[in-house]
This record gives sequence, structure tokens and C-alpha cells, in this order.
Amino acid sequence: MASSVNPPRGMRDFLPREKARREQVLSVIRSVYRAHGFEEIETPVMEDSSRLHAGLGGDNEKLAFGVMKRGLTADDLHAADDPLELADLGLRFDLTVPLTRFYATHHAALPAVFRAVQIAPVWRAERPQKGRYRQFVQCDIDIIGEAGPLAELELLNATADTLTALGIEGWSFRINDRRILHSLLRYWKVDPASAERVLIALDKEDKIGVQGVVDELRELGVGDAGLIAEVLLGGQLTDLADDGWALLAEGSAATGPAPAWLDADVYRELLELRAALPGARVVFSPILVRGMGYYTGTIFEIAHPSSTSSLGGGGRYDGMIGRLLGTDVPATGFSIGFERILDLVTLPEEAAADAVVLLHDADVAPQTLVALKSALLVRGGRVRLERKPRNLKPLLEQLAASGFGRVATVTAATASVDELEFRALGRP
Amino acid sequence: MASSVNPPRGMRDFLPREKARREQVLSVIRSVYRAHGFEEIETPVMEDSSRLHAGLGGDNEKLAFGVMKRGLTADDLHAADDPLELADLGLRFDLTVPLTRFYATHHAALPAVFRAVQIAPVWRAERPQKGRYRQFVQCDIDIIGEAGPLAELELLNATADTLTALGIEGWSFRINDRRILHSLLRYWKVDPASAERVLIALDKEDKIGVQGVVDELRELGVGDAGLIAEVLLGGQLTDLADDGWALLAEGSAATGPAPAWLDADVYRELLELRAALPGARVVFSPILVRGMGYYTGTIFEIAHPSSTSSLGGGGRYDGMIGRLLGTDVPATGFSIGFERILDLVTLPEEAAADAVVLLHDADVAPQTLVALKSALLVRGGRVRLERKPRNLKPLLEQLAASGFGRVATVTAATASVDELEFRALGRP
Repeated sequence: MASSVNPPRGMRDFLPREKARREQVLSVIRSVYRAHGFEEIETPVMEDSSRLHAGLGGDNEKLAFGVMKRGLTADDLHAADDPLELADLGLRFDLTVPLTRFYATHHAALPAVFRAVQIAPVWRAERPQKGRYRQFVQCDIDIIGEAGPLAELELLNATADTLTALGIEGWSFRINDRRILHSLLRYWKVDPASAERVLIALDKEDKIGVQGVVDELRELGVGDAGLIAEVLLGGQLTDLADDGWALLAEGSAATGPAPAWLDADVYRELLELRAALPGARVVFSPILVRGMGYYTGTIFEIAHPSSTSSLGGGGRYDGMIGRLLGTDVPATGFSIGFERILDLVTLPEEAAADAVVLLHDADVAPQTLVALKSALLVRGGRVRLERKPRNLKPLLEQLAASGFGRVATVTAATASVDELEFRALGRP
Repeated sequence: MASSVNPPRGMRDFLPREKARREQVLSVIRSVYRAHGFEEIETPVMEDSSRLHAGLGGDNEKLAFGVMKRGLTADDLHAADDPLELADLGLRFDLTVPLTRFYATHHAALPAVFRAVQIAPVWRAERPQKGRYRQFVQCDIDIIGEAGPLAELELLNATADTLTALGIEGWSFRINDRRILHSLLRYWKVDPASAERVLIALDKEDKIGVQGVVDELRELGVGDAGLIAEVLLGGQLTDLADDGWALLAEGSAATGPAPAWLDADVYRELLELRAALPGARVVFSPILVRGMGYYTGTIFEIAHPSSTSSLGGGGRYDGMIGRLLGTDVPATGFSIGFERILDLVTLPEEAAADAVVLLHDADVAPQTLVALKSALLVRGGRVRLERKPRNLKPLLEQLAASGFGRVATVTAATASVDELEFRALGRP
């Protein structure tokens, strides 16, 4: 019996206290993004199945829940060889694929530079495990139509202000550029056939450690694994808390020649971006990869000492919208992993003095109770009616935990709110 | 090309202005419900397919989108004769079925009388038509654990305060009781075999009119169609704007004997409920049926002159939770049809003076722009950066429509926010 009433595997119910906390945090995120000039949009939770499996979503495409066509007959089932033939829709696995589709649909009605907020659930049919769910919320901001570093700056600033507003301490941004990785691959003379495996090996530094990466690169026969270890992993960068900007010291301070491993153009843009970035919390991490295949330039992540995985990330994906729209449109996005930051948020509790409870016996007339409630509500605040139980203490504790601050008793003789005597909850 | 980037059929994208309006309205609804002592919860958008097809959802069960099992092979498809064999999950078609499942899962952690709010989308694979969508938002409040009319009163009051807070005019509540309908069927000596069809005929009054109902009842051979027409449809109740309470005049004013067509117990409870209800906006409608099969007592709808269909509705469904939990728990709910009320809402526009735009040329350094933006944000409000286009007028109109109230120009020479000269938007 017990298991038959659980939510589906890997998905969660939220009880009132948890739901209130989630909504409070989302409300802060929403208001900071809005203050930064971003505008919220919404798309349906489903997209056409063909769009979800068009190669834009990388490995996540395999995790899309498929939604069955309606009105299928037994013959339809027997004639199908691939489940995808039976699904015309699917649940979105991220908010980027729907955003590019949204932009392609509505670009004529949107500003030349469009700053979008999406705060919404996504679904992935992953094996459920601790901290990993099949339905979870993402908070994405994207700037579409801005090719220069102003987009990166606005995204990083809005995200930094959001983390600060949520009272999260100790975070930093790790940034890199896909073109730096390509420079490295060329400099290391990596065979194009093994380029992807080299990047995958670098991307695993947070899981297998520096020596693990060096070992994997050696196995892959990368030209000079010693140089990798020295320059990128073992030298100035013994771990990712170090600041990779020091690597650029191979070039001169501001406008000198690029280090040998870096294209001059990429180097110049990197210096420009660095000059514009707020320094203290931005770490240049030349081995940051990020899994998604669609990034074309800057990539970034939120690092936090509480976890080896990131609290969020994003980057520039200039080619993606063009694939749908036919004309290239630059785009940059940053996504906060809402479920991952929740435990780090420190927001003050709401003031509870205006949230009151009216305790009553069973013999008080319903119309008396709702009249008292309405009279109190006119004054603002929050009112809860509760029938007095035999054992009062657990109820009062529950109410205090729900944010109610004062309680009064209503009897059959109570005629108006002026007769109510309130006492503070939580005190005996 | 154009059609290939549309959202799925019957589903909608929301652009910034529409999304902001929807969130503003939802925020008002949320805050009134909360003030009335209700607590918001959330369940996953999916439930087990077997639960969605357990007979609790009436006709809506047929409209559930099915979510395919993962990892299906060609053999699995060939061996299946019914699409439901291939779907282990489905998208919820209402918020009541998930709520009863939630309550069965968590009742031990919830208060004895639980007042729940759910504000969330539901999905129905209906034929799309004007004003009817495949994804739409419902706003439900439910009281679980209260058997008496206090539950109905709190629901009606919270809903009335919500409609008022939204600035909606001219609405009224229509109420009835399923037991009154059963009384009528007995009084009319309706053959149990045609009882459902008689109720369906009554329920169509808003579509086929009074005479249409009388005609259908005659065709169904209902004992005394003349009486139906006279007493319920053609007499005191020529149309639904009339107050069915007058029908009770057959009994004496307050505590006298019940009218011949009404059970004495139901009559007494009806008089009690009437005494407790705020009179002016509550119309007793003895032919109100509501389609869902699970209602057991009071049923209600929000009527509005703008539409023959209701803006929302609900009722008492005492038997439903017991079917899951094994012990009976009384329950009453009220759902506002969010999409149907949106056009009737009149809320004031937000003050725009604190929302400012910084217009800039391409030659202003990104770090200057974000520094100015940050300095303004510290003072509160909302800041949007916009590169100055060749034709300024459409951009400024768009910004004014998005709620921005003031604009200033940034040049390469601008050094601090004190140098910015703001002018009001919307004025030349």
C-alpha cells in the first residue's frame, strides 16, 4: 500500500514548508534577473520529438521522456520498430533547445538584443540517485543578438548579484573559451580523431583528479602529456582554486605576444574580457570543457567549495539559432542549477506577527468563524482557522513552524475581533 | 520553415508582456489564498499511468498524454496490443487526482485539517480550439479533513476575495448539491438506467437552453417533464440569473417541512449552508450538475455574464481519498480556471519610474556600461542596456510598453551615474 501512493520514481512532492522555501528563493532570483533588464518568457513543457532529437542537446537527448501519439492502434504498435516512431512529442530536457525554437518563432516581435529569463522545470530519464532527480528546476538567462563581451559581462554580473542576494558565500566563476581548447589541441598536435576523447579526459578533472587526467592523456597518446601536466595541471594550476590567469604571464602584461599555445586573436579577446571582468571571483580555467556540444566561445561555471560539480554554468552558442532560423544570431546563456543552490541559500525567515491562528471549539458557528476571519484579513496578514484538538501542543508547534506568530481562542460567545486576545506562538 | 518552429499544436509560448501579466495575476491569487490560511504544495507533472486511469478523473482520463516507458525494444512494441501497455507514466489532466495521491503519501506529516493550494499547469489531449488549450494553468484550493460546511464557506470566501482582488466584476457563485439531484431523480421516478443521461441533459442547459433541456428530458421519457419545466426550468427559474433559493419557499421560511421533491436531511443542511453564506452573490441552482463523477455533496461554479461556461468550479468529494487511503477523509475543493479569468482581470500597471534604460553607442566600453548599470541597481529598480539603433522610435515605444519609465544616454565620456540625464519615456 505504502509504495503504491508514492510519486513516480526520481520525482518529488513538495510539502508546504519546502514549497514555500523554493518559491521564496525563486522569487529572489526572478527579481534580480528582472532588475538586470531580463524579461521572463515561457514555453510549453513539450516540444516536437523531432526537435528534441535534432542533435542540439548532446547526450541529454537520450534522456528525453517521449510522449505517445494519441489514438494509436494495435496495428500501429506492431508496425513500429523504434519507440521514437510512436512519440510525436517529448518533455524538454533543458531550456536552451526550447529557447532557440521560441526565438525562431517570435524573433520578429522581440528586441534586437533579447534578454530572456526562463525559470521552469525540465525532465531527464536518468537513473535516480542522491541529489539527482528526473524533474528539476533550471533558472536560465540568455542574451540573444549580442556578439561582444557585453553579453558575457551582463550574464556574469546578473548571476553574481543573484548569488549575493541569496546569501550564498564562497562561490567563484570559472571561465574558459572553447577556442582555447581548440588552440591547445592544435598546439599538442592532437589527432582530430581523438580530440573529443582528449576533451572528455580534461573534463573529468573534478572526478578523477589531476593525475587521473594526465594518465588518461598519456593513454590517448597525446603528443606531450608532460607539457600538459606542467603547464596546465601541475604547474601554475596545481588545483582549480589557483588562478589560471597566471598562465597568460607567458605573454606580456597587457598587450604583449600570446603564449605559444594560444592563438593571438583568442589571446587578445581573452585579455579584453579579463579587463572587463570583476577580478576577485573570476578564475580562468583553461581545462574547463563543459559537456554540451553547442558552445562556440566563452564557457563558464559557478564553482563552490561545497561540491566538486558546479552550481550552474553556461557559455556562448553562436551557431545554434542559425541552424533553425537560417541566419546566424549570436547567443550567450547562463543557467543556475536551482536544486544545487537551495541548500546554500541563507534568507531571513518571514516576520510572523501578522500571521494569526483562530482556535475554536466544534460548537462555534461556521458563519461566526468566517466573519471573524474576514474582519481580520481586512487588516492584512494571514489567518488560519483551527479546531482545538485534545492535545494542543503539537498543533501549535506545527503552526509556529509554518510561520504563524500569534494565536487567539474563539468561543461561541465571541462577537467581534476586538474581543480576541492574541498571545505569541512559540512561547508557553 | 515557418510552421516547423511553432510550439506543439494547442500549446502556447508566452512573450514577455503576456508572461509578466500572467505572473502578476498568479501572484495576486497566491497571496490571497495564503492570507486565507492555505498552504501551497507541488507534485510532479507526471503520475503513474495506472493512477491516472483508475476511474477518478471521469472523461478527462481519456485525455491524458501518455509517457512512454524507457528502453523499449522493437519486440516490446510488436508484443503490445494497447498503447497503455507501453506507457508507465502520464501527464496529469487535473490537480485533484495528484492531490489525493499526495495526501495518501504524506497525510501523517500534514495537519488534521489540511488547506492546500496548487497553482500549476495540467495537460489534456483535446482537439485544440479557440480558448481551449492542451496545456493550461489551474489554481486549486482544497480543504481535506473538514466534514462540515466550514470547508465550503472558507473556499467560497477565499475565492470571492481572490476575484475581488483581481478586479473582476459581475461574477456570482452558483451552488447545488449532488444529493438534491439524487432527490429529484427519485421524486421524478427516473429509471436508474437513465439517471446519468437525465443529469447530462440538465448539465447542457448552458449550451442548449431551457427548452432544449425540456425536450431532451421528454425524449428520455422522464416521468413528469412538465413538472421539471415548471418547477426547475420554466417557473421560478426562467434563467440562471434567477435565484433558486425561491424554490425552497415550498417549505417554510427557515425550519419548516421540506418541499415534496427534497429529502428532509438535505433540506435542513441546505438551509444551514444558506444561513452561513454571504447572500448577494450566491445563487442556488438546482440543475447545476458538473461533469466529474467524484462529487458527493455541495457543488459550485463561478458564473460570469461574459461567458456561458463557468470561470471555475468545485465541490465536495468525500469518497475519493478513502479509495486510496483505506479510511474515509472528507474533502472539498475549488478550482479557478486561470486561462478563463485572465481577460477579465483589471490590475493597475506597475509604476515605471524606477525602470530605466541606458542607451549607448557601440564605442562605449562594456566595462563602463556594466559599472553604470551596477551603480544604478544599488539604488533599486530595473536597468536595461540598449545599443542605440538607427531608428530610435520603435525601440523606445517597445521599452515603454515593457514598463520602462525613463531613459538616459551613455557616451564614451560618461564617467559616473551622476552625469546621466534621464528623461521620461513615452513623452517626446
